[in-house]
Amino acid sequence: MMYITKSMSFSASHRLHNPELSDEENLEIYDKCNNPNGHGHNYKLEVTVVGMPNEKIGYVIDLKLLKKIIEDEVVSHVDHKHLNFDVEFLKDIIPSVENLAKAFWKRLDGKIPDVKLYSIKLYETETSWVEYFGEKENV
Amino acid sequence: MMYITKSMSFSASHRLHNPELSDEENLEIYDKCNNPNGHGHNYKLEVTVVGMPNEKIGYVIDLKLLKKIIEDEVVSHVDHKHLNFDVEFLKDIIPSVENLAKAFWKRLDGKIPDVKLYSIKLYETETSWVEYFGEKENV
Amino acid sequence: MMYITKSMSFSASHRLHNPELSDEENLEIYDKCNNPNGHGHNYKLEVTVVGMPNEKIGYVIDLKLLKKIIEDEVVSHVDHKHLNFDVEFLKDIIPSVENLAKAFWKRLDGKIPDVKLYSIKLYETETSWVEYFGEKENV
Amino acid sequence: MMYITKSMSFSASHRLHNPELSDEENLEIYDKCNNPNGHGHNYKLEVTVVGMPNEKIGYVIDLKLLKKIIEDEVVSHVDHKHLNFDVEFLKDIIPSVENLAKAFWKRLDGKIPDVKLYSIKLYETETSWVEYFGEKENV
Amino acid sequence: MMYITKSMSFSASHRLHNPELSDEENLEIYDKCNNPNGHGHNYKLEVTVVGMPNEKIGYVIDLKLLKKIIEDEVVSHVDHKHLNFDVEFLKDIIPSVENLAKAFWKRLDGKIPDVKLYSIKLYETETSWVEYFGEKENV
Amino acid sequence: MMYITKSMSFSASHRLHNPELSDEENLEIYDKCNNPNGHGHNYKLEVTVVGMPNEKIGYVIDLKLLKKIIEDEVVSHVDHKHLNFDVEFLKDIIPSVENLAKAFWKRLDGKIPDVKLYSIKLYETETSWVEYFGEKENV
Repeated sequence: MMYITKSMSFSASHRLHNPELSDEENLEIYDKCNNPNGHGHNYKLEVTVVGMPNEKIGYVIDLKLLKKIIEDEVVSHVDHKHLNFDVEFLKDIIPSVENLAKAFWKRLDGKIPDVKLYSIKLYETETSWVEYFGEKENV
Repeated sequence: MMYITKSMSFSASHRLHNPELSDEENLEIYDKCNNPNGHGHNYKLEVTVVGMPNEKIGYVIDLKLLKKIIEDEVVSHVDHKHLNFDVEFLKDIIPSVENLAKAFWKRLDGKIPDVKLYSIKLYETETSWVEYFGEKENV
Repeated sequence: MMYITKSMSFSASHRLHNPELSDEENLEIYDKCNNPNGHGHNYKLEVTVVGMPNEKIGYVIDLKLLKKIIEDEVVSHVDHKHLNFDVEFLKDIIPSVENLAKAFWKRLDGKIPDVKLYSIKLYETETSWVEYFGEKENV
Repeated sequence: MMYITKSMSFSASHRLHNPELSDEENLEIYDKCNNPNGHGHNYKLEVTVVGMPNEKIGYVIDLKLLKKIIEDEVVSHVDHKHLNFDVEFLKDIIPSVENLAKAFWKRLDGKIPDVKLYSIKLYETETSWVEYFGEKENV
Repeated sequence: MMYITKSMSFSASHRLHNPELSDEENLEIYDKCNNPNGHGHNYKLEVTVVGMPNEKIGYVIDLKLLKKIIEDEVVSHVDHKHLNFDVEFLKDIIPSVENLAKAFWKRLDGKIPDVKLYSIKLYETETSWVEYFGEKENV
Repeated sequence: MMYITKSMSFSASHRLHNPELSDEENLEIYDKCNNPNGHGHNYKLEVTVVGMPNEKIGYVIDLKLLKKIIEDEVVSHVDHKHLNFDVEFLKDIIPSVENLAKAFWKRLDGKIPDVKLYSIKLYETETSWVEYFGEKENV
């Protein structure tokens, strides 16, 4: 088994805010991440898949294909967007890095031929990131 | 003469839009950077000052002081903010990376004791940045 | 389950030397790392915790809180220090990167609310690092 | 148990081409990676080993020794070489990043004293890499 | 005046060899860079242009346009190629990083509207690079 | 003219302390950098030289030679050392990053054949560095 990773980037804005809480609670919980006009990041997204290399070709998966799927399913929907307002598949989700990773997993799981999706690693900044391995934790 | 640089980061959102132009013109010029709800970046800001090292101390400037001035004059005003709406000193400025660099120069020029401000380098992403040396171009 | 990581840095000096060995043995084992006056590094410390995101908030843990705990328990004690002499919780430990990772684990394990400490990754340089998962190896 | 990693680099050229396939098939499968004169990369190789720190010394393994073994067994054979023609242990292998990682594992497995080889991580570019844990997948 | 930089990458192979010298001289001068089958790199290319920001738009130049010109004039010709054999505009040039930078300058100078080409910075590895400012040295 | 840079690293410890000042003054000026047992860094040193490429060879300078000179004149003297005590050419110098850059310039100036030393850039951390161009400032 081989684990192959493709890393991509996107630039987006978001606001951490739960409409079911009061403004005071939101500010206390999210602090500066609750700024009403939002703020933004250059997110880095690393998608890892696992499989056996095709013996004739030497690839687990063609990285151009993996990149195209990530672009089509995730990056094209979130790049240069406001994650609270502009993305259909993020409707009703508080766009924390945890919830984004989970939503991206759902977008990609089952869409990549011949391999299994292994993990989604999402960097909000160079010093903060999350890693998600799907519902059945397999690490 | 020695050139000393301090690098800092901030996360902000912005929208490129000139209200004097039509929506069509804005979209044609700024493309995805014109997204109505904005988008965001982890900006990296490098401030370079120039001076002679103090012979007794060995510093051109105490980097903790330089960092504090950049924090007070710039970073605290823009971090986790929307650059079009939340920043007094960016009012009426289209927040392109060029205009931000110029605005940050104005905030810092003359505020740093014992040295001359030499340059403002501002990264919007890891692959795009601007460098500004003040009105009298000196490179 | 989500794995959340916060990365922090500190600058410290150390000397690799076992007082129970002769000077000749120390020099042979540790080579230039045995330099009597020590040497130093910009260490990078990555602390990963694991837990379920809070449904109402979207966080596994507030990263500001995680950062504060790492700062209070580890970084404030070792930054700009000599690891052989200045740090109470490193007394009688040879400050190899392995032993440091283990000592940092002990400082942090059980101190972070609502999550489980998962791993300590400690970089001595950009090309050398150690990762530790606690006594019951769980990878 | 501690996981220790040493990272090294090498610059090499390669061509993805399976001589058992037609030129048309090769071009369709490998696209620009099939360029007859080849192309090249600065590969980054991260070798992770696992073991218990020696109590007297504080090391799992002396990193200078680990570096020397990686240099002798792998890097000296592939650096500044064409991977299709110049490397004895890559004969008859399509030099995809997957097959390289596997070949490097075979070169290193059993050669590093006192520890177990845990993983080979090989970056072809900053945004594409593979990780291999040996035949019995152990993650 | 503002200095705007766009950074791009390409992967290529090359061989340092002067056909007017003997094989022995070539080997002595270029050492492992003279390997007959060549070797390769992930080159990083930073193109800096200088100009005044357009007051209405806030750009010195649209970075998408700058990227397209670099792609069309340079990157599309050299990416996944052998620099000694596959590139028309590198014919009869020894593809040292110095000569490549000069050749890329010639490809780009005069092709970028509204701004002046200021510098070409070309990284062969993360620790070796060249910077070129055109024939009239202007730094 | 071409500007060629070689980047190297070294790990060292230092203490900022002026023996002509009182302990109180030292502590006030240098704060945590005055810690009696010192602290340390992974320094990154970038040496830039300028010259014309040799037409027959295509090099401004052989980078292996440049690396060897930097290694012999600077890195071998400071790597894994305490900069206040262990380095002959740093005697009586307060090892601030400014003074180190100047001392390294003196070690290298005039020692590199066929080219002119252009600048010494020295990083103390990833976010703080100094650049020095010699006594006659030429930028």
